[in-house]
Amino acid sequence: MILHGYFRSGAAYRTRIALNLKGVTYEQSGVDLRTGAQRSEAFLALNPQGMVPALETDQGVLTQSPAILEWLEETYPEPPLLPKEPDDRARVRAMAALIGCDIHPLSNLRVLTELRTNWGADQARIDGWAARWMVPGLQALTALVESHGRGWSWGAAPTLIDCYLIPQLYSARRFNIDLTPFPTLLAVEAQALAHPAFEAAHPDRQPDAD
Amino acid sequence: MILHGYFRSGAAYRTRIALNLKGVTYEQSGVDLRTGAQRSEAFLALNPQGMVPALETDQGVLTQSPAILEWLEETYPEPPLLPKEPDDRARVRAMAALIGCDIHPLSNLRVLTELRTNWGADQARIDGWAARWMVPGLQALTALVESHGRGWSWGAAPTLIDCYLIPQLYSARRFNIDLTPFPTLLAVEAQALAHPAFEAAHPDRQPDAD
Repeated sequence: MILHGYFRSGAAYRTRIALNLKGVTYEQSGVDLRTGAQRSEAFLALNPQGMVPALETDQGVLTQSPAILEWLEETYPEPPLLPKEPDDRARVRAMAALIGCDIHPLSNLRVLTELRTNWGADQARIDGWAARWMVPGLQALTALVESHGRGWSWGAAPTLIDCYLIPQLYSARRFNIDLTPFPTLLAVEAQALAHPAFEAAHPDRQPDAD
Repeated sequence: MILHGYFRSGAAYRTRIALNLKGVTYEQSGVDLRTGAQRSEAFLALNPQGMVPALETDQGVLTQSPAILEWLEETYPEPPLLPKEPDDRARVRAMAALIGCDIHPLSNLRVLTELRTNWGADQARIDGWAARWMVPGLQALTALVESHGRGWSWGAAPTLIDCYLIPQLYSARRFNIDLTPFPTLLAVEAQALAHPAFEAAHPDRQPDAD
């Protein structure tokens, strides 16, 4: 299996965490988003949408991290990243979607490039834009983690949510967002960063990191 | 079951389609996003994130349409909205996520309000912003529907993808996006709009429509 990603991409980072939690062995191929490698002929042949991650398996190429994570859960059931009961599964997926749909898409590289190029945004405006979506999102998530977490975001073991949360906190720091109002999330992060699956997935440890 | 939504919300619209496809009976409660009803005390008690849809069931409140759709698939398996094979399921989910993560979140009401309020955007700039994300997204989706669709977006029956696609095309028209370059998607839409589940879910037919 080959994961085509980019060390700093939140979507690639969450996919690495899930692969590591499932104990799946994979190679990596770096796609440098800064130089437009996602629009190269070679990469577009893998993923015509030109976005990372793309997971190359024996059966073909899978794209879109939320779909890849569900595929991992179905194909490698242990350890589970979702609880057993449908209502609980829905709540875990909702907490993941809160990050995956309501926070992450608004501050990925192509959106920031658009704001810089066509809306005259400087770094302070970019940071403000990111904070506009991240802060209320992390506030809402905090309330849910306080209800459902016991060390991790849901219960006492890593789930789908943590695959999304840890990369989102990494991203928040890059936008200079003050995370001190989020001690509940920082406690989950501290636990995660000491876990081998999360440790090995960290952007700084990837072969394409600089 | 009570679906708390808003007639024009794409996320509520996709949830109505899925409920209708599954043959689930539900009541509706309108949350008028234009007047800020999503921030009322009553609604925040249901969904502290202050976003629609929220599906009130006997067991509690479910939020985030991607999670609600997966819950419906697990709780009401017939007719299926996902294929059986994990690889196919991943591809259907990826096509849904292409809309749910890469298109929809960038042009929902709160983002447009931010652009109008703090970035000086007029309607032409708003339309351009929406087109910036919708056009390449719909292009990528077209290639996938051409590979996998046989009347519908995937195969010969409605799936999860169609629940996302039809509201997205409705939204595209509101931003004056020219859809003539997307005949493959328009053919799926024509079929969908004649299907009772989609027909009944249309924004114009909701109790809170104006």
